[in-house]
Formats: sequence, structure tokens, C-alpha cells
Amino acid sequence: MPAPRQVFVAVIGAGGVGRCFISQLTSLATRLSQSTASPTYLSLILLSNSKKTLHSSTYLPLSLSSWESDLESCTTSALSPPEIADYLAAAQAPVILVDNTSNQNIADAYPLFLKKGISVVTPNKKAFSGSYSLWNDIFSAAKNGTGTGLGGFVFHESSVGAGLPVISTLKELVETGDEVTRIEGVFSGTMSFLFNSFMPVGGGGGKFAAEVKKAKELGYTEPDPRDDLNGLDVARKLTILARVVGLEVESATSFPVQSLIPKDLESCKSGDEFMEKLPKFDGDMEKIKEEAAGEGKVVRFVGSIDVGSKKVNVGLKKFDTSHPIAALKGSDNIISFYTKRYGENPLIIQGAGAGGEVTAMGVTGDLTKVIRFL
Amino acid sequence: MPAPRQVFVAVIGAGGVGRCFISQLTSLATRLSQSTASPTYLSLILLSNSKKTLHSSTYLPLSLSSWESDLESCTTSALSPPEIADYLAAAQAPVILVDNTSNQNIADAYPLFLKKGISVVTPNKKAFSGSYSLWNDIFSAAKNGTGTGLGGFVFHESSVGAGLPVISTLKELVETGDEVTRIEGVFSGTMSFLFNSFMPVGGGGGKFAAEVKKAKELGYTEPDPRDDLNGLDVARKLTILARVVGLEVESATSFPVQSLIPKDLESCKSGDEFMEKLPKFDGDMEKIKEEAAGEGKVVRFVGSIDVGSKKVNVGLKKFDTSHPIAALKGSDNIISFYTKRYGENPLIIQGAGAGGEVTAMGVTGDLTKVIRFL
Repeated sequence: MPAPRQVFVAVIGAGGVGRCFISQLTSLATRLSQSTASPTYLSLILLSNSKKTLHSSTYLPLSLSSWESDLESCTTSALSPPEIADYLAAAQAPVILVDNTSNQNIADAYPLFLKKGISVVTPNKKAFSGSYSLWNDIFSAAKNGTGTGLGGFVFHESSVGAGLPVISTLKELVETGDEVTRIEGVFSGTMSFLFNSFMPVGGGGGKFAAEVKKAKELGYTEPDPRDDLNGLDVARKLTILARVVGLEVESATSFPVQSLIPKDLESCKSGDEFMEKLPKFDGDMEKIKEEAAGEGKVVRFVGSIDVGSKKVNVGLKKFDTSHPIAALKGSDNIISFYTKRYGENPLIIQGAGAGGEVTAMGVTGDLTKVIRFL
Repeated sequence: MPAPRQVFVAVIGAGGVGRCFISQLTSLATRLSQSTASPTYLSLILLSNSKKTLHSSTYLPLSLSSWESDLESCTTSALSPPEIADYLAAAQAPVILVDNTSNQNIADAYPLFLKKGISVVTPNKKAFSGSYSLWNDIFSAAKNGTGTGLGGFVFHESSVGAGLPVISTLKELVETGDEVTRIEGVFSGTMSFLFNSFMPVGGGGGKFAAEVKKAKELGYTEPDPRDDLNGLDVARKLTILARVVGLEVESATSFPVQSLIPKDLESCKSGDEFMEKLPKFDGDMEKIKEEAAGEGKVVRFVGSIDVGSKKVNVGLKKFDTSHPIAALKGSDNIISFYTKRYGENPLIIQGAGAGGEVTAMGVTGDLTKVIRFL
């Protein structure tokens, strides 16, 4: 039997996704340590939230069962990204950093981590949908990047569609020489739920503001629903996919994004004020709904990339009721890849695109990929 | 710049898929040789069809442009799998064998190739849906298998759903600790086309025998349509998925498979005789159609795996017209994974599941994976 090898894992972010990830990491560590072919010992050597950082100067493994109370009683305030990078770079085994936050500061430090040989896996969209120069810095430093980089590996499957195999599939289409002509889909669980309720196939559905209220109450929106309705979350995901397919999109605000926040409500001071005033604008959305119904269609909030003309677009669009996008259920995502090889009928991937467990699954999947490459 | 490395590729099978693969290999070889980070030289060192084998005793690269005429004028009769294994094992660079046939003899030799350190990538279903002992021999020899094997790598994405990311997705669900409860779908392009025409949503559709005739004329069936209608192709794919998810399915004939060949026509001597007599049995299929229509449903030919009860099933099933399986178009495949994490709405993958280009794409994708691991 080959000698077991040690791989260190560092986790930043211990919220919803972070908690699910640590639980999946626990099972994975048990399974990999028992592998007869190539036993691998995964040890958590750093765990950080926005306030505190758990770690030891001698890289002792942290407990995967009592991490919550350990973090609670920890007295070390949160290390900065450069401090974390120095700590991890000095470790005596390969290190994979798992960023389960949506923090821009940590995203900005990815090139630093990668250059120091630390691999990065993350659902954090900020790094890949921020400035194009950050994207370039990341992928020119990474070993699985675009240049001569010999640093760590980087994977971010869960940054689009959570655990759905969206980015890996798109990369494989590109790498095997297919010509991707168009990408279209519903990329937001919130928007999916909202429009599937607002205008279900077959008629019915409530007023728009009431549906937003319901979605918020059921936990399908951000604490402030404006963070979903402004379309930026979808725009970030489209930016990532467009860049994977080779388009040099400058940022998530460099193409048309339709916001569902009425102009007159852009100055609202709070989410509560916004929610209170939103019903006044139900008429506008009813008009859109009636127009679509008159054509035998439904309205959905989608993102699309036309690769040939390099056009990225986010906003409302009408679909025939027999279209797969119209038939979507609950808060599911759907992503259609139109390519030369697949012809008229696209390659479609569909399912839950948000939620702690499935997001963490994409991260854990990326982690297993890096472990195989190390 | 790091020193370029050499990887050898050997190809068995130069028919429809083989031809598309060699074309994709040509582009991939050009791209990988120009990579600034890790230039890789891919050389084709053996090309074999059922009659002849092109290769040189000094492992000189074969031409990727004139291979057809070179094979035509070649005078070496086809080497046997053990002869090929000996030739490849003595090469001075890592070798990846690409089996683009559906030949059982070559499939039976995979353990031999793998043990000699030769990696195998293939769309050939025979190896993975044959006896369970062959499956075990393959995955205990492979480095990415289940045991202590230190041989070559093995990948077979295109053995189910062609280039659709079916096997890789299922493996990731399992590896990250999700609990797959059920798999259901349309796994045959032929059956998809046939039933989408025979009983389209919204009514209409021709008589069954006429639709089979049409499908044959359009090239959607095997030369002898009985090879599709007996359900064995779907049974083979289900066997593969059931084994990936951990069920010890003995073979593709060890669970219920509904054949669409009427009992009285099982003794037909030829495909032509079968096609001539099939219309006599249209009444049976019409009855099934009417029964489904009476319930507001459509009939489709599907495969399903119930993981908990370890039950695999292939045959006709009724679906609501709003079900994604009913809404399938053309000859598309659809595969739904029901899992604990994904809850009520499954993770769905849909698109063309047959055809030279998309099948070859799955093979080329597997090839790039092995190259990364080598």
C-alpha cells in the first residue's frame, strides 16, 4: 500500500455554505483516509469568519466536530488575507484554500494565494466577475490557467448554478473544440421562483409586489430583495460564463442589465421602504404580463450571451409556453448551451442553483479535483 | 518555459465516431503543443480498424491528415489486442488507448491494457455493461479505480448519453457524499425520436410501424431496427449507471427489459422480414397510445434505477404532458438524477445523446482528463 499523503485545507467563511461544506469535508476526509489505492489525510488547519481566525502556529489539525464552539471561544481576531497567505505558504504540505464568503477583499487576494502555491476553490462570484484585470491576474498565476503560471490550482464551479455542472461543461465544450454560439438561461433561484409564481404556465399568479413579498417571507430572496431585483447577481454569472467562453467582458456592469427596481424607487433608503412602495408599480408589471399572455407566452428573467456578436444581456424575455425555460419549476435554474455540435437542440442543464448543500457540493467537487491534481 | 512532454495516442476503430475523434484530436494536438504553461506533444502511434493496423516499430507518429489513404494502402493485417498491448507497453512515453469500436473482444482486453500502464478512454459500452467480473477487473486495475490498482486511467463518459456530462456528474454526486435515490430518463436517441413522433404532446403522430420505418430511413435506427427495439442498448446504459452508483448489477440482462419486438416476430430471419410484418401489430401499440391519451398522458420508452430497492427497469411508461420527459424534442436524451440534496426537483441533463461529433467530444474530453492526470 502506498504511503498516505497529507493535504491541508483552510476555510474562510462559516455561514450557510461554510457550515454545509465543513460537514461534507468531514465525510470526504473519512473516505479519502480509508482509500486503499492512495490514502490522503485531509486536515483543516485554518478556519476564519469575519471576526475571528482559528489556527495554530504548528499547523495542528482543527476539530471538525467542535469547530463551532472552538471558533466561538477563540480570542484571535480575524487575520487579513496577506497574513493568511503567509501562514499557509509556510505549511509543510500542499494547501487548498476554500473561500465560502462573497467577500471582495478575499477575492482580490486570490492572485497572491495562487502565486504562493496555494490552491483556491470557491463559490465566491466576486473574483471572477470583478474587473477583467483581476480575472487575468488569477488565471495567469494559476497552474490550470491560461499562461505559464506554476502556482496553485483554481476552481469555481459553484460561482454559477451552485453544484450544477455548468462551468465544467462549458469548459469541456470549449476545450474539445466545439463552437459555442449562444448561452441562455435562468441563473437566479430567486428570479426563477418569482416569475414561476408571478406568471405560471396555464395562467394565474399574483401581483408582482405580493409575489416578491411571498418570496422574501419564504427565504428565497436576499434580506433586502433589491439585491436580487437589480439583476446584478445574474449579471455577475453571465460575466463569468462569457469570460470562460473567451469574451473579454470588462465587468458585470459593462453590458445591458434590466433592473426590476422602478426608477422612482431607486432612492429608497431601506428595503422596508422599498417593499412598502413596490405595490404602486404593480401596473407596469401587469402590462408586461398581459402583453405576453396575449401572444400565448410567459415572461421570465433571463441572461443570454450571443458569442458571435459578443453581446451579453440580462432582463425580461417572453417565451412560448412549450419552451423549457417556461416549464421550469420552483426555484430551479436552467442553462442552455447552443453549440455547433449540438445543433438546433441545446445541451441543457437544470436543477437547484442555490442553497447551502448544493453550493457546498460544487465546492467539495472542486476540492476533490484539486486533490487529484496535486 | 517548461520542457514539452510527449504523450502517445493509439486509436482502434476508424468508423463514424473514430473519424470525428481523429479530427478533434488534430485540433487538440495543435492547441496543446502551443500551450505556454505545459506544452504537450500528442502523437498518434497506432491506428487500427477491424482489418488492418497502421503502426511503426520505432513509434514514429502517423499522419493525422493522410490516415485514411495510409490505412487503405497498409498491408499489415489487424493486430490482436494482446499484440497491441505489447506494442504500446514498450513505448517510451505514456500511452492512451482510444477504443472507438463497440467490440467485445477489445473491451475484454481493457484489464490487460490497464495493468500494463496504458490508459483507456472509450465510448464502448460493452466493457462496462458486460459481466460484473469484467467491470471489477477493469476498476481494480485502473489507477482511478476502486482498489490499489496502479495501472492506467480509464474514462468512459460517452458510454452513456454520448458527450453529455452524465457519468462525470453522477460520479461527483456520489463522491461528494450526496445520496442518489433515483435515476430516470430517455437514454436512446432512437427511442426518443420514435416516441416523440409516435405520440407527440398535443396529439397526432403516425402508426408505430410507419414511425419505425421513417426513423430507419432518416438514419435514426441501427441498420436492423430490432437492435434498437429490443431495449438492450438502453439496458446496457442503465447497467453502467447502476454500477457507478454502487449497485452490483450482474449484467444488462439481469433485470426486466421490455422489448418492443412482438413475440410472434422474434423468429424473423431478417430485419427486412421484421419490418414487413411489423404493421400487423400496430393495434397493440395503438391500444397503449389510446390508454395513455385517455389519462391525459403520453408514452415514452425510459430506463429507471431505484437505488434504495436496487431495482433497474427498462420499458414503456406514461408521463404527464407537462413532465420534462414528455417535452423532449427530436432525438434528444434526458437524464434526471433524484438525490437527497436536490430534493423534489431533480438535477436534469438534456441534449443530443448520439451522433459522431458529440460522441467523439466525450472521448476527447476524457482524453484531456487523462493528459492532465499523467
